[in-house]
Amino acid sequence: MTAVSAAPAEVLRTAYQKSVASYWNAEQDPVNLRLGDVDGLYHHHYGIGEVDLSVLEGPEATREARIIAEMHRLETAQADVLLDHLGDIRPHDRLLDAGCGRGGSSIMANQRFGCEVDGVSISQKQVDFANDQASRRGVSDKVRYHFRNMLDTGFETGSRRAIWNNESTMYVDLVELFAEHARQLEFGGRYVTITGCYNDVTGGRSKAVAQIDQHYTCNIHPRSAYFKAMTANGLVPISVVDLTAQTIPYWELRAKSSVATGVEDPFLTAYREGSFHYLLIAADRV
Amino acid sequence: MTAVSAAPAEVLRTAYQKSVASYWNAEQDPVNLRLGDVDGLYHHHYGIGEVDLSVLEGPEATREARIIAEMHRLETAQADVLLDHLGDIRPHDRLLDAGCGRGGSSIMANQRFGCEVDGVSISQKQVDFANDQASRRGVSDKVRYHFRNMLDTGFETGSRRAIWNNESTMYVDLVELFAEHARQLEFGGRYVTITGCYNDVTGGRSKAVAQIDQHYTCNIHPRSAYFKAMTANGLVPISVVDLTAQTIPYWELRAKSSVATGVEDPFLTAYREGSFHYLLIAADRV
Amino acid sequence: MTAVSAAPAEVLRTAYQKSVASYWNAEQDPVNLRLGDVDGLYHHHYGIGEVDLSVLEGPEATREARIIAEMHRLETAQADVLLDHLGDIRPHDRLLDAGCGRGGSSIMANQRFGCEVDGVSISQKQVDFANDQASRRGVSDKVRYHFRNMLDTGFETGSRRAIWNNESTMYVDLVELFAEHARQLEFGGRYVTITGCYNDVTGGRSKAVAQIDQHYTCNIHPRSAYFKAMTANGLVPISVVDLTAQTIPYWELRAKSSVATGVEDPFLTAYREGSFHYLLIAADRV
Amino acid sequence: MTAVSAAPAEVLRTAYQKSVASYWNAEQDPVNLRLGDVDGLYHHHYGIGEVDLSVLEGPEATREARIIAEMHRLETAQADVLLDHLGDIRPHDRLLDAGCGRGGSSIMANQRFGCEVDGVSISQKQVDFANDQASRRGVSDKVRYHFRNMLDTGFETGSRRAIWNNESTMYVDLVELFAEHARQLEFGGRYVTITGCYNDVTGGRSKAVAQIDQHYTCNIHPRSAYFKAMTANGLVPISVVDLTAQTIPYWELRAKSSVATGVEDPFLTAYREGSFHYLLIAADRV
Amino acid sequence: MTAVSAAPAEVLRTAYQKSVASYWNAEQDPVNLRLGDVDGLYHHHYGIGEVDLSVLEGPEATREARIIAEMHRLETAQADVLLDHLGDIRPHDRLLDAGCGRGGSSIMANQRFGCEVDGVSISQKQVDFANDQASRRGVSDKVRYHFRNMLDTGFETGSRRAIWNNESTMYVDLVELFAEHARQLEFGGRYVTITGCYNDVTGGRSKAVAQIDQHYTCNIHPRSAYFKAMTANGLVPISVVDLTAQTIPYWELRAKSSVATGVEDPFLTAYREGSFHYLLIAADRV
Amino acid sequence: MTAVSAAPAEVLRTAYQKSVASYWNAEQDPVNLRLGDVDGLYHHHYGIGEVDLSVLEGPEATREARIIAEMHRLETAQADVLLDHLGDIRPHDRLLDAGCGRGGSSIMANQRFGCEVDGVSISQKQVDFANDQASRRGVSDKVRYHFRNMLDTGFETGSRRAIWNNESTMYVDLVELFAEHARQLEFGGRYVTITGCYNDVTGGRSKAVAQIDQHYTCNIHPRSAYFKAMTANGLVPISVVDLTAQTIPYWELRAKSSVATGVEDPFLTAYREGSFHYLLIAADRV
Repeated sequence: MTAVSAAPAEVLRTAYQKSVASYWNAEQDPVNLRLGDVDGLYHHHYGIGEVDLSVLEGPEATREARIIAEMHRLETAQADVLLDHLGDIRPHDRLLDAGCGRGGSSIMANQRFGCEVDGVSISQKQVDFANDQASRRGVSDKVRYHFRNMLDTGFETGSRRAIWNNESTMYVDLVELFAEHARQLEFGGRYVTITGCYNDVTGGRSKAVAQIDQHYTCNIHPRSAYFKAMTANGLVPISVVDLTAQTIPYWELRAKSSVATGVEDPFLTAYREGSFHYLLIAADRV
Repeated sequence: MTAVSAAPAEVLRTAYQKSVASYWNAEQDPVNLRLGDVDGLYHHHYGIGEVDLSVLEGPEATREARIIAEMHRLETAQADVLLDHLGDIRPHDRLLDAGCGRGGSSIMANQRFGCEVDGVSISQKQVDFANDQASRRGVSDKVRYHFRNMLDTGFETGSRRAIWNNESTMYVDLVELFAEHARQLEFGGRYVTITGCYNDVTGGRSKAVAQIDQHYTCNIHPRSAYFKAMTANGLVPISVVDLTAQTIPYWELRAKSSVATGVEDPFLTAYREGSFHYLLIAADRV
Repeated sequence: MTAVSAAPAEVLRTAYQKSVASYWNAEQDPVNLRLGDVDGLYHHHYGIGEVDLSVLEGPEATREARIIAEMHRLETAQADVLLDHLGDIRPHDRLLDAGCGRGGSSIMANQRFGCEVDGVSISQKQVDFANDQASRRGVSDKVRYHFRNMLDTGFETGSRRAIWNNESTMYVDLVELFAEHARQLEFGGRYVTITGCYNDVTGGRSKAVAQIDQHYTCNIHPRSAYFKAMTANGLVPISVVDLTAQTIPYWELRAKSSVATGVEDPFLTAYREGSFHYLLIAADRV
Repeated sequence: MTAVSAAPAEVLRTAYQKSVASYWNAEQDPVNLRLGDVDGLYHHHYGIGEVDLSVLEGPEATREARIIAEMHRLETAQADVLLDHLGDIRPHDRLLDAGCGRGGSSIMANQRFGCEVDGVSISQKQVDFANDQASRRGVSDKVRYHFRNMLDTGFETGSRRAIWNNESTMYVDLVELFAEHARQLEFGGRYVTITGCYNDVTGGRSKAVAQIDQHYTCNIHPRSAYFKAMTANGLVPISVVDLTAQTIPYWELRAKSSVATGVEDPFLTAYREGSFHYLLIAADRV
Repeated sequence: MTAVSAAPAEVLRTAYQKSVASYWNAEQDPVNLRLGDVDGLYHHHYGIGEVDLSVLEGPEATREARIIAEMHRLETAQADVLLDHLGDIRPHDRLLDAGCGRGGSSIMANQRFGCEVDGVSISQKQVDFANDQASRRGVSDKVRYHFRNMLDTGFETGSRRAIWNNESTMYVDLVELFAEHARQLEFGGRYVTITGCYNDVTGGRSKAVAQIDQHYTCNIHPRSAYFKAMTANGLVPISVVDLTAQTIPYWELRAKSSVATGVEDPFLTAYREGSFHYLLIAADRV
Repeated sequence: MTAVSAAPAEVLRTAYQKSVASYWNAEQDPVNLRLGDVDGLYHHHYGIGEVDLSVLEGPEATREARIIAEMHRLETAQADVLLDHLGDIRPHDRLLDAGCGRGGSSIMANQRFGCEVDGVSISQKQVDFANDQASRRGVSDKVRYHFRNMLDTGFETGSRRAIWNNESTMYVDLVELFAEHARQLEFGGRYVTITGCYNDVTGGRSKAVAQIDQHYTCNIHPRSAYFKAMTANGLVPISVVDLTAQTIPYWELRAKSSVATGVEDPFLTAYREGSFHYLLIAADRV
């Protein structure tokens, strides 16, 4: 399996997928780039954990840098929690980062476990950026990013010890996604996702959730959809953790930062009104 | 069955339903009210058919009135097409207008068939407005509007010869909706809906569709969802008509009118790019 | 993919399939052959549209020829309506005529779209006849007929832009058929069928429908079976048209013709009593 | 529960059911009446077991009577085999004979177990005939026949220790039928059917099976349909017996008798070619 | 709803249920009774949390009492964790303790939330014991135990804010159980279970798990069965916690105590080899 | 397909499978070995039929040998009944003995039909033993045993005329098993199993059944599970026979023999109390 990219026509099957790819090819949000610049781990997800509020104080000149560093610490902490749930990974295992963005989580997984990691994205720009980062770190023999569709990766059946989606499931049909994951995982392999999902208990997609969907042209799923699609595809939960309370501080800090993108209010509203969860699910392939 | 309304707590089960009810209780869009003023048929749906472009010409003073009359003609034409698909309705039959808005379609059904019609809405304001209209027309013994949830109407099992949803299915789960409709329809009864649905072929919800969802805090379903939910609930299609080409002229006219609400562009974009259909489905209960 | 035929044992899996193949290998009904002789388009389906009743008048000597020409016009009109629903077909697309009979529809599709068409039949005689016609027309490089089972064609996965069944679904299990069609269609490809189906609303198979089944040793499905099997196989309807009223004139004319086979009365009875529909369904593969 | 009959409109829901009821209301076939006259047990099913061929010999004058008595012995033997599979029935148990015809099996069950039996039929004539027979035998306090639809009997949930269909399942949808049976049976109750079913292995409905369907305006199910519908409704088989070889002698005798109805050839052909089984299934309600 | 008990025949439907009831009617295990004597909270479940190992030291005379008190502290801690997951319970809410044993959890729930709690058990002895405890505490107006089957409680539809099973799901079919729970819960109500389940990843029921099943005549389910049955019944997980590591210390202590029953070794083996989990699942009714 | 064995890691996927393999690799029960010694047909199943009680009388010195010979006669009789249900097998057909143990049934099938038989077992010791027996009999060109998992045999799709499980289904998930069998059977092929299954009517797994499970570390399925899993995998029953009454004499004799293993009492209790059936199911692949 080399890092040679597939032809766009094979990867981007629908108009919708093309529009998502275009969005991420064009995206240059400081909230992603400037945070990644801190230590070269470029993430495309949000943070969790207590905020060190002292970053808001002190010299004005470095205030923004302190906020950015703190936000980056929180998003890296989130990735660490995700990796904590991957189970017992050995150096010879192979992992898949589905919807890898600019590749930060894959690098962290390689650092922690010493094993091979493949990341896939439908944004050629993200793939190139991530492969470039892996080269700079000298890990491109172990960490490879591919221009592929996570619904049809072409990776070998049963080849993966673990797979994760870090905030990328809202772009795809979950039944198709989990079918493909189940195909790639070995028996007993682990799947982990951290995702925003809307709350079946408060009913349909709230105004705030609709605003998030509209912002990213994504399609946030109800919580129930995850369990239905897992059950239909041989993925059995072992841990489900509601991270909502742990992610709100990140959003409060971000709302006060210079890298806010405008989506902060819908997130905070949705989390606070209970119409939206930030959820981690870890499941075994059986 | 009287027109006495149920308690709000029983009708509005979730936070989402409450927010939808609030929206429609507060809504005073001229595109709905001024068009209804033309002849007292107040609709909450869009129009179909060829536009008489001459309304754009002629005296400026009455231009707006001509446009409004023309748009109203088109939305009434749409309701007529829906009623054309109800099948052979007799005066002793009972009908249900699910998501009745300000009640125009129910009045038209009573005029055409002479039978009893019940309309339900989760907006108390709409229900009151509609009952008031029925009184003015002297048909309140035959046409009654109820503050009820179309997912759980309380109407008797097997009591309906026909049920329709005129652009109201995007607020609810289709499986729940069609289960309730199937319960209420007699064997061989007819169900008709005209609805916007997104196109599975272009993939997930497009930007334009997301904007419509965000505008109305609704949840537009993919086309496939209608057939899955019907199949699961004993509703067998007899006619499916793609009305997209017939509704575009209405939107083009509306975009030029004084009553445009801003949602015209997303609609036109979605229809033209093919990510969205305006679909009529007629089905039999078996 | 060549036109080389498979071995009978691989194509005809069951005793039932062998009996159907025998029937069509032996069939020489004038209603099929003489109508095809008119212009060399040999159909195995019925007609739709208004009848030109003047054919019944005029010189007795040519009356029969006029009737036959008129019936042929109607069956060709039916095939045209089917092709109208195939969507936007380009010359490089590949089509499949499932249950192709003597091949008329395939020829018409090639004439209209300029693309390759494969027809399959379990009657070796029909296949040979149809390939002979294609040779005479000089289109055998584009239009090929194969002795194959439409439940297991051997054609490549995702290779077809469109597939149709023109009155051939009543010989097979619909779930198996649509699974095979779904396999062969590309994402977004189109499926169209025109078929007789019995009406779930009038209940089980009526006497008249049973007579048709007995005549052809076929198994007419209820209307509901089509939507269940499509839903289960990723085929989403975009058009459903009840052609019953449009096909009755054809049958009335045929009943008066010299090529009547005796099955006219059951058809007319079934259509008129409402126990049977002549239905067109067009659906997209998603 | 009295023997008072329901209104026809409630019992006969569809045009198909009305046509079946008309057929049986009008039916006066000697093969049913003359055989019943032998000892007053009027059956509507076929026979099993070895034929005493000596009945074909002896005085011509009584030959027909001997044949008829022998055929009646075989159909009674069939009913005995069915009753053998009802399990341990006590006098206080309540049974249901679904599709009871002229009532013979119900009488036999009452004679054997001493318990109450309700029979249902959609033929008012059969119901009246059967109730008259019960009166003559003085068992109308225990054996009652009702003009009801076996898909919706109105009998109490969980009220039945055992239910059977003796050759009556081919008139109804099996999923609906077994749902209603499951509703009426107590936990652990027994269901038994003897039925003709076509063989999935030989494929679709053969010519001979189609002729039987056409003769009775019925809809013979494939063998697989029974197990699917039972599985979906909590009915777990405990015995499945292929009675085909045991019923052929009955048909051979009948073909030689004066009461042959013309359906003998299709039956013999279908059984001998293997496209049709005569099957007994006994199952427990769980 | 009074505490009047139902007739045994209605509650104990099968021979299996009768044998389970007999077991618990006869059960007098000190591990349940002596621990309950500590403070009058009688539990039928195991403990979690760190063990205070100092209880093993100190005066021999009171060693056993210290161990027992410590074990009771751990089982009460387990019940507290379960109650922590019930969500926001108000005094007017009604709760159900399904498989309540001698009633300890119900008492704790009433103490914490001040609301009404109904417990059900198929052991009349347990019900009587528990009601006696409620009387002694003066809470029998709020906490009531019933001799009922948790698969068919007779409680009103939608009447419960929360329901739990504390180690009682291994006696029943999960699909039946969750259907009944879903019926009783209000929309948005909470369900919580703590249970032992075997691990699909290690494969079928291990020797150690089979020994536990044999000890209690129960039927430990695989982990996957919980999620399948929840998904099929509108129960959507919000928390899943693997408590295995937290329960092992309890078992190690119990193995050293005088109240060990012999089942300690299979539990420890199963937990340590990974073939068995001690799992908490909290889910919302939607 | 050669008899070369696969690597253990590919065959034994789970800890459970490894433990089952270890059990059978170590097993040397005289009840299997000494009975096989009688005539070199080594079985791993139980017997059916009337016992010749005279074996209990006569000279003490040979009493044990007589009992053993009689038990072996009964287990061979059981295998004969299983083979009777395989249908019309021709010398060129290929059969599969799934869970072949020491191979007796495969030898008998080859003797009866003259065709090739493959046996699979996850016990390498059993496979070696069985291949050695085939060599001694000079049939190793026709009868081959393989170290393979019956859930994933690697045999070619559609390659088998018939497959059987003789008391080996209780070690596996039935849905997985029947999916694999369905894959391997040709259309119309036959599947037969003889198995112990617990009775859904008496409820959950009884104490006696749990003791059997614990003895063999197996997982006896409820009767209903067989029909659900067959229905889901295109296996349609043609015969179901309750052999319980026919197997009890075998167990009574075995309980009195020197080769009793202690599992006799649970078997006799379970069969007599009705909580357990000894069932034969024959089904066709469609």
